Amino acid sequence: MKPILAEVITIGDEILFGQITDTNTQWLGAELTKIGIRTIRKSSVGDKKEAILDVLKEATERADLVIITGGLGPTKDDITKATLCTYFNTTLERNPEALAFVTKFFESRGRQITEINAKQADLPLNCTYVPNDWGTAPGMWFNENDTVYVSLPGVPFEMKNLMQYRIIPLLQKQFETPTIVHKIIRTVGIGESFLAETISDWEDALPGHIKLAYLPHFGQVRLRLTGTGDDATLLKKQLDEQVEAVLPLINSYVFGFDDDELETTVARLLSDKTWMLATAESCTGGYVASQITKYAGSSAYFVGGVVSYSNTVKVNQLGVKPETLSQFGAVSEQTVREMAEGVRKTLGANVGIATSGIAGPDGGTPEKPVGTIWIACSTEKKTVARLLKLGPYREQNIQLTSVYVLNLLRQTLLEEN
Amino acid sequence: MKPILAEVITIGDEILFGQITDTNTQWLGAELTKIGIRTIRKSSVGDKKEAILDVLKEATERADLVIITGGLGPTKDDITKATLCTYFNTTLERNPEALAFVTKFFESRGRQITEINAKQADLPLNCTYVPNDWGTAPGMWFNENDTVYVSLPGVPFEMKNLMQYRIIPLLQKQFETPTIVHKIIRTVGIGESFLAETISDWEDALPGHIKLAYLPHFGQVRLRLTGTGDDATLLKKQLDEQVEAVLPLINSYVFGFDDDELETTVARLLSDKTWMLATAESCTGGYVASQITKYAGSSAYFVGGVVSYSNTVKVNQLGVKPETLSQFGAVSEQTVREMAEGVRKTLGANVGIATSGIAGPDGGTPEKPVGTIWIACSTEKKTVARLLKLGPYREQNIQLTSVYVLNLLRQTLLEEN
Repeated sequence: MKPILAEVITIGDEILFGQITDTNTQWLGAELTKIGIRTIRKSSVGDKKEAILDVLKEATERADLVIITGGLGPTKDDITKATLCTYFNTTLERNPEALAFVTKFFESRGRQITEINAKQADLPLNCTYVPNDWGTAPGMWFNENDTVYVSLPGVPFEMKNLMQYRIIPLLQKQFETPTIVHKIIRTVGIGESFLAETISDWEDALPGHIKLAYLPHFGQVRLRLTGTGDDATLLKKQLDEQVEAVLPLINSYVFGFDDDELETTVARLLSDKTWMLATAESCTGGYVASQITKYAGSSAYFVGGVVSYSNTVKVNQLGVKPETLSQFGAVSEQTVREMAEGVRKTLGANVGIATSGIAGPDGGTPEKPVGTIWIACSTEKKTVARLLKLGPYREQNIQLTSVYVLNLLRQTLLEEN
Repeated sequence: MKPILAEVITIGDEILFGQITDTNTQWLGAELTKIGIRTIRKSSVGDKKEAILDVLKEATERADLVIITGGLGPTKDDITKATLCTYFNTTLERNPEALAFVTKFFESRGRQITEINAKQADLPLNCTYVPNDWGTAPGMWFNENDTVYVSLPGVPFEMKNLMQYRIIPLLQKQFETPTIVHKIIRTVGIGESFLAETISDWEDALPGHIKLAYLPHFGQVRLRLTGTGDDATLLKKQLDEQVEAVLPLINSYVFGFDDDELETTVARLLSDKTWMLATAESCTGGYVASQITKYAGSSAYFVGGVVSYSNTVKVNQLGVKPETLSQFGAVSEQTVREMAEGVRKTLGANVGIATSGIAGPDGGTPEKPVGTIWIACSTEKKTVARLLKLGPYREQNIQLTSVYVLNLLRQTLLEEN
């Protein structure tokens, strides 16, 4: 079976000039992969008619499916629809169904529709209108010269919902897709090079239809196995066998598979024990708590936390001894241990984790340079602390500290089984 | 002067398949814009020689500068260097300077260099080696057929540092760049359409060399004015005049300009008053505190916070009355007011902000559907609470709540002046 090839085009000067973060194309790539459509290129071009026409023409030559996002908003810098008309040699016409939808959208919010809003219902004559229940810019579906074109708004949550609930079912009807099976092994605490050395014999012996990729990201490396063929059950079995073969070599670094995250792994371990977690954060400033609570249902195992940015809060809310702070400083093994113990006891949790360090870029000293960060994990049985020696970058230090303290929590939960 | 045109190419199946977040291209676009180089296209292709050769060829036809990131790591799925050799009809050779660097990099970390590491010093013969002080994959600079090609590693902090400290100075020597001046007006609390209606007369009267773009993002809209010409001082003056003209129409929504963020704006307002802030977070779970503390120096105005995920923490750490919780529930005006007042008093701050709501996707009731969120801001003078009616999406609800509670804080700080 020939693979279905897709290209994703995003339109907007704001993307080229780096003024907004494009989260759409990553999400689209992942969703297309899940249904067996292979993305072969992503392109971003500016709000220029010629540039959009060029990229459409090029993509059409290579792909079976072209997904276009952005350039559909109500304001004057949006020109996607006009350009699609030129490309398909057609004209815009106000679509009654789309107009009724936009009118209702504004009325339900107690607002009168303006002419700018109404223009969102103007669609190229050759498109199939795809209603957008999450906003006012409609989706459009074109099927011309053996290529399917889908145009979606650039607002991420509108695009995602439109894609998930409307477009993907249409794509599955339209295309016969090959079978691609992924299996991801998720590791933490080992670098890419050393991981590669450790498993190189196994990697060299992989069969040709199974491909391996290393995906490093903030203290973690994901190993992605991709199998291509016709038989999903067989592919899954083959990938599982490869995973079985490699696991003994890297077991202590593996925290999960596929969509597992460190946060969901510790969530599962906490839930298994019916334990509650509490966090005490200094240098991470609430980031660890926010990572835990971004998952729905976290109230089942997370009691809460204290962001103890000032020493007063460390003493009053966490019970850190003033002598500890004056003798060893806020960034010390003694302080971080008392923070972890303190938050566990004060908040009535079974396990407490804590961070205290110099995130940077300023505040370092010769003895404690920027990147000196202590982490701790405390249970009723014991408290463990570790020193991290990270780099000069604040954002990276915060994110890495979160990964390492959650890994320390994971190891503690496993040991106490 | 002819503008210098750039294309950015990222290489890696992991980007096409949506398995990593690409933050590099946004950053590169912004940096190139700052030095007056116009990015006209960004492309991502997979780890396939033919695809990389195609995109290089296409980019060369359009651009003066081609920046390539990714595909330089030590593992076997990286093929950028080999492909560059094919493209430039040359071969790889171990570069002694690069080898010495990589060897020293590992030795300074107490590790022996492996053959996989050493291969990172193999470079195409026609390139100029650009040392990477932040990792082991080197930068490469090519100047062929009137086009400059720069190849950078994909690891964001290596790429960013290499670009900032090595490549940008080289680019400024190489190219004579036109003058582009940007001015951004940052608004919060007004939608894109209504903003556009409000300022449409002003927008229509903008001169041809000044372009306006609307950049909406999570409850905020940035208005970006771009002026192109030869005289930076004149352009700046013209943009400032346009800003002066539009401000009276939208003043109450404007919180800052250019790189201002809501967080840095409230930081400045707090510092002006020498006030300390404290946060009490339920549904945002530490996200608000993490947004405040991601900025260096935040300890000067942020005392700390409590993530009161459970009711016990609301009562014990924040002093919310148990009767309030039993009578009105955790998601109520009464509770969020007591949280804001409680955290201000308990943590000894001048102003406290609080969030409590149903972030979703579950936990809604007919009376309090998902997206029902209360926010509050408390000073010694008064406590103000507001009800937000947001949507069904957890991540969006958390981020929007953070924006709205920081805006409530901003308004409170302005009023108490």
